[in-house]
Amino acid sequence: MRRVAVTGVGMTLFGKQPERSLEELGREAILAALHDAGLEQDRIGAAYCGNALGGGAVGQRVLADLDIGGLPVVNVEAACASGSVALHEGWLRVAAGMHDVVLVFGVEKLSDRFDGVITLDRGHESETRLGLTMPASYAFIAQRHMAEHGTTREQLALVSVKNHKHGVLNPKAQYRTEFSVEEVLTSRMIADPLTLYQCCANSDGAAAVLLVAEDLIHDSATRPVWIRGTGLASGTSLRRVRDMSYSEIAARAARAAYEQADISPEDVCVAEVHDAFTIGEMVACEALGFCERGRSGALVETGETELGGRIPVNPSGGLLSKGHPVGATGVAQIVELAHQLRGEAGRRQVEGARIGVAHTLGGGVAALDGVACAVTVLGV
Amino acid sequence: MRRVAVTGVGMTLFGKQPERSLEELGREAILAALHDAGLEQDRIGAAYCGNALGGGAVGQRVLADLDIGGLPVVNVEAACASGSVALHEGWLRVAAGMHDVVLVFGVEKLSDRFDGVITLDRGHESETRLGLTMPASYAFIAQRHMAEHGTTREQLALVSVKNHKHGVLNPKAQYRTEFSVEEVLTSRMIADPLTLYQCCANSDGAAAVLLVAEDLIHDSATRPVWIRGTGLASGTSLRRVRDMSYSEIAARAARAAYEQADISPEDVCVAEVHDAFTIGEMVACEALGFCERGRSGALVETGETELGGRIPVNPSGGLLSKGHPVGATGVAQIVELAHQLRGEAGRRQVEGARIGVAHTLGGGVAALDGVACAVTVLGV
Repeated sequence: MRRVAVTGVGMTLFGKQPERSLEELGREAILAALHDAGLEQDRIGAAYCGNALGGGAVGQRVLADLDIGGLPVVNVEAACASGSVALHEGWLRVAAGMHDVVLVFGVEKLSDRFDGVITLDRGHESETRLGLTMPASYAFIAQRHMAEHGTTREQLALVSVKNHKHGVLNPKAQYRTEFSVEEVLTSRMIADPLTLYQCCANSDGAAAVLLVAEDLIHDSATRPVWIRGTGLASGTSLRRVRDMSYSEIAARAARAAYEQADISPEDVCVAEVHDAFTIGEMVACEALGFCERGRSGALVETGETELGGRIPVNPSGGLLSKGHPVGATGVAQIVELAHQLRGEAGRRQVEGARIGVAHTLGGGVAALDGVACAVTVLGV
Repeated sequence: MRRVAVTGVGMTLFGKQPERSLEELGREAILAALHDAGLEQDRIGAAYCGNALGGGAVGQRVLADLDIGGLPVVNVEAACASGSVALHEGWLRVAAGMHDVVLVFGVEKLSDRFDGVITLDRGHESETRLGLTMPASYAFIAQRHMAEHGTTREQLALVSVKNHKHGVLNPKAQYRTEFSVEEVLTSRMIADPLTLYQCCANSDGAAAVLLVAEDLIHDSATRPVWIRGTGLASGTSLRRVRDMSYSEIAARAARAAYEQADISPEDVCVAEVHDAFTIGEMVACEALGFCERGRSGALVETGETELGGRIPVNPSGGLLSKGHPVGATGVAQIVELAHQLRGEAGRRQVEGARIGVAHTLGGGVAALDGVACAVTVLGV
């Protein structure tokens, strides 16, 4: 299989943009990525689109609107991991030699569609019937983590404090406001122990990256960022889950990605992980090996995951501050890591970052221990 | 890239089955395919699921229900071509050497969800606002075909007559009733010239196939059916469409698949094509090269596409008679062709069939000339 580089990245603002269409959001991100890569759009051989809730043929609709028509377009859905799974499939297509240049983009528009409850299962709606919405699913994990490992409410809040602090430095972020631990803890209770400022918002936005085969990377000016490893895992039946406070699915995806990249957790310089809720970042950090199992409370408390710390996590502001337009999220993580690894992240730059890891998790625990997890290792 | 074989196929009955869940339908098709292949489920390395309208994480939900958990699962959406695009992606994964055994399945449940109108665009609903529903889109094509090529209403009706005649021979088909040309023409008008019996129904059902790398095909008893070519194309903007009576998108997908398979249209022994509406089969036959452009009316009239004819089309009954559970349709075509190429199609067997072609088209003409087209060439 060929090595695959990310040579161009782009994204829109994340936030409430009810007046903009999916097509308009997608167009802006794709044109930005093409411009960044210095590629004309007729070089694109195939495209992958990550989207969860936008209806049918979203990728084709966006590309036809851009007058990039005719080529193979594959729409990929994996709940909150949709964009990351699209990236995995795009990588496979280039690595396998099917196409030399593949566009991967994610787009979502949530602000004008929902009353606040997003479920996976349109048929049975077991999640809403049982009350097992996303915040409730994550609250179960948080409660178990507190019971098993002595994790405190303050430690959970610190994840939000840190990510909002990072988000202030990101001009694309939805919420650019710092909060104190006190403010996070006293914001409205959503699902105990998760308060409002510990839950990401529904956002509108798009992100895009261009993947190029190593054979075409001649010009050092293109500053390639290599996809060194990419792992996917899916959820198992809940009855197989032994420890609700640990993300087995993320550990499986990480193992696959690290093996392919031939790295260990100690090699990671910067990470973007799925902090849809504060506890989500904590269990991701454990599964990715940034600390021992059960020790993610101490990890955030000691500042190790803050900018300037040992392993900065979510320098972009993460889902909590940057926002979470579902299908775009996984692709936007790659946009952030590409900027970090190229040394272009400005005031939120992780100095000397050479290896970055992205992690997304789709789905809650209504029927599964998460439905899909993707871990990607990038390197320069 | 490695050669990839279909070694096991399975499907449910197609039809109105409102009492059965997506999970139950998927399970039946997958277990049938595993049984047919003589494989245990722990041999599956990854899975692809084609689904258009079932909500989030459909593939993961079906597999967790089967207790096949943990592995990479990718959900693919391409409107009516969803199952075919899932097959393409599954083929790529095996061909590239990522996994040796990949499950591809499609599942859909429509009977209890819709009031009869299915649209792609949940945001703008431009299709329904303009009246450009699927039957209307195809009616435009039919009108243009009649105007350009002198195609008659009787020729259109003959497609339905033929496919229902075939469907009587298929125990999995939704409608197993023969109709006369007169009956088809006098059934209720849906979108002139398309009458009710020229439109497929909304169905529930699932289909599954197992793809295996050539390295693992030791035993001649597995009767491998090889994927010789697979082409995808997407729609271009309507303003680029020069002739509404011709399916450019299908011609592009067919060209890619035929080139990869190194065949010409004359080599094809049997075909399953996307007859969501009678005119759909006609324009597909032209684009696939079974007759000259504009001559598909004569093709059906002379009996060449009937069982026993020169190039039997839709021996399964097609979407018109077998039914159209959207995500399952493209996979079910492969099920039918595998039976045909193995010589196991019983009373609807195409004698001596060695090469089969499957064609699906997703989407109407509201914004595009179709949104996605997939053509697959199978051979023994």
